[in-house]
Amino acid sequence: MQLFEKLIDYPDAERLVLENVPRPREENLPLVDARGLVLARDLSARFDSPPFDNSAVDGYAVRSADAEAGRTFAVVDEAPAGRPSKKSVGEGEAIKIFTGGVIPTGADAVVMVENTSGWGETFDLKKFASPGQNIRDRGGDVREGDVILRSGTEIGAPEIALAATQGYGELPVYRRPKVVVLSTGTELVTPGERDLSPGEIYDSNSFATMSQAREAGAEARRLHAASDDADVLRDALREALETADVVVTSGGVSVGEKDLVKSTLLELGVDQVFWGVKFKPGKPLFFGKRDDVRFFGLPGNPVSAMVCFELFVRPALMRMMGREDRRRPHISVYFDEDVSNSFGRMHAMRVTLERTERGWRAESVGAQGSGLVSSLTKADALALIGPESEGIRAGESVEAIVLRDEILL
Amino acid sequence: MQLFEKLIDYPDAERLVLENVPRPREENLPLVDARGLVLARDLSARFDSPPFDNSAVDGYAVRSADAEAGRTFAVVDEAPAGRPSKKSVGEGEAIKIFTGGVIPTGADAVVMVENTSGWGETFDLKKFASPGQNIRDRGGDVREGDVILRSGTEIGAPEIALAATQGYGELPVYRRPKVVVLSTGTELVTPGERDLSPGEIYDSNSFATMSQAREAGAEARRLHAASDDADVLRDALREALETADVVVTSGGVSVGEKDLVKSTLLELGVDQVFWGVKFKPGKPLFFGKRDDVRFFGLPGNPVSAMVCFELFVRPALMRMMGREDRRRPHISVYFDEDVSNSFGRMHAMRVTLERTERGWRAESVGAQGSGLVSSLTKADALALIGPESEGIRAGESVEAIVLRDEILL
Repeated sequence: MQLFEKLIDYPDAERLVLENVPRPREENLPLVDARGLVLARDLSARFDSPPFDNSAVDGYAVRSADAEAGRTFAVVDEAPAGRPSKKSVGEGEAIKIFTGGVIPTGADAVVMVENTSGWGETFDLKKFASPGQNIRDRGGDVREGDVILRSGTEIGAPEIALAATQGYGELPVYRRPKVVVLSTGTELVTPGERDLSPGEIYDSNSFATMSQAREAGAEARRLHAASDDADVLRDALREALETADVVVTSGGVSVGEKDLVKSTLLELGVDQVFWGVKFKPGKPLFFGKRDDVRFFGLPGNPVSAMVCFELFVRPALMRMMGREDRRRPHISVYFDEDVSNSFGRMHAMRVTLERTERGWRAESVGAQGSGLVSSLTKADALALIGPESEGIRAGESVEAIVLRDEILL
Repeated sequence: MQLFEKLIDYPDAERLVLENVPRPREENLPLVDARGLVLARDLSARFDSPPFDNSAVDGYAVRSADAEAGRTFAVVDEAPAGRPSKKSVGEGEAIKIFTGGVIPTGADAVVMVENTSGWGETFDLKKFASPGQNIRDRGGDVREGDVILRSGTEIGAPEIALAATQGYGELPVYRRPKVVVLSTGTELVTPGERDLSPGEIYDSNSFATMSQAREAGAEARRLHAASDDADVLRDALREALETADVVVTSGGVSVGEKDLVKSTLLELGVDQVFWGVKFKPGKPLFFGKRDDVRFFGLPGNPVSAMVCFELFVRPALMRMMGREDRRRPHISVYFDEDVSNSFGRMHAMRVTLERTERGWRAESVGAQGSGLVSSLTKADALALIGPESEGIRAGESVEAIVLRDEILL
């Protein structure tokens, strides 16, 4: 009978996962597809932006020296955006101009049409104009050669807009890891496929894992293979290892005879980094690697699988995308009552949170059984009880990992 | 010369947009694709879950009445997950069982293999077992008929897991609005396409708008059409209105002669709800509707376009997806210095935020010109200065819309 060789502590397990994360890999993505990813290189301005002096309003380009209220101007040409006028503005002359239009030679101010007698071949000025008025200077936003976006910046709409003004059609980013979620277990039926026969349950873990992987920013797909046919399982694991950056299974890593996954993995050349964490729910977590591929064997219980993903897989995926600081928020919480921990290992307890005058009050969502999927839909956070303690006292501060960011807003 | 008929206040504009949002529309999506969307109907449990009493561990199913430490048991069958045993457990008998396996008739406890002499045809028990030990009861998570997820719930990984356990392969959700972003303007060149000719600039607005729409959860695509060819523009607008839930343009809604967009819209049967908001940056905002399609004409200046999207389009898209409470977070901020507002309308000022002992301190990102795209990459929030005031005093509280949630975490 095979048992865990050595259980390690939660912080050591987290450290080992992060130390073994492969380097983020770069790719170029079309502007809009880069949203939510991290820039892999500094981006510099290729030219002054705006690239030419241009009008901030619709009106007339004039010489400010002439622009006294009451004066009448002769309109000699027009300069819509994209169609610069080839004429220059002389004394008492004006060129009709629209927002974004190139400021014509000779002009040093634009008067808004609202401050004139209106559109026409001539117009009267109602209000004087000062030099530079309503002109956006060439290079006023960024200068050629300036670093406009630093490597490590997360790309959002403003960054996409700024890169676009500089003509970048693609951005160099750290690419989304490809996650293959392997669903094993002869008892599992794909939801929506058919009714259950006796002893069967619907596969929920692989759908939860895919969702968590996508939420972390990764690509995810699912492979289904019955875990008790050694050949089928080996082929599926091989395909997963050959096409993924990260392979995630659930179940098949416990100590039962039927647990072929782990032995098959070792056979396929996956090196074990650790197996077994002093942590509830999730003791039988397996972490291994083969070349640049990382393998997480999550426990089969749905709650254990989801909690292990949050604590170990998510930070790894984040780091693979260059997002160093993107762990879930950690906060300090307290309980109104004593909380026991008789498990001899750290307990990541599902809790609800409430903001009080004393800080964040945590309360257990109720029964903490690792099969209680509904409990996770109620949880705001995981309160970390332990590892060494036998529990904590009412009012004592303890660390919690927030699962629903929006509760902090 | 056409001018704004009537400028309205920002809160009135926001109200008019939200009042005119069409009802969210339902669709059924595969489980994982429903992530991030809002459930459109209550979801009930179709059966007890777990659907049968099952083992929480790997070990032996026994009768607890027999289960004294030191006793030897005869193993009469096995019950892996998915393959219930047809035998029942008699006195002194045991059935080998694995996590998830159906508890056989006669048994009322499971002993972990770690608490026995190991796997074999017989085993010695090291530790007594109590009734119900290591058994997950049928219906222990949810009961047939229970509402497991309420209409209005945002779907995340836990909700997907829970729905999966009940065999739901699809979820009824409010669907993502289809946004068509229409890029107009003869001066615009698509980034990455070619170098600029004199007077041209790269189109940044439509890429920013698409990014913002996707960030809000909508689908978005871009149509490009030169705005000064009336026929081309009319065809593009017609296509947009026929294929989109929401059409967004930028530019072409100002008062210039070249602004054909608005007149073409009216010709195509779009009813104006409002045109012109007492608000900077973004005065010439146009909002209209045709049947169930909504039309936003954003100003052409990049900063104005992005700010108007945040303030008006995003809340509309959110509401169309059933997300009533998903405005950007609003917080109270103060400035260290007096801030003037001489515009005669509300100023949504781009600011950075810093958490201090007094609360959130805001500071202008610098120049607030509406062409300064780089300024938005620096902004954490929009501080709302006005509408009536000529500014605010140092230390005075003012409302701000937070653009980067993570700063609050």
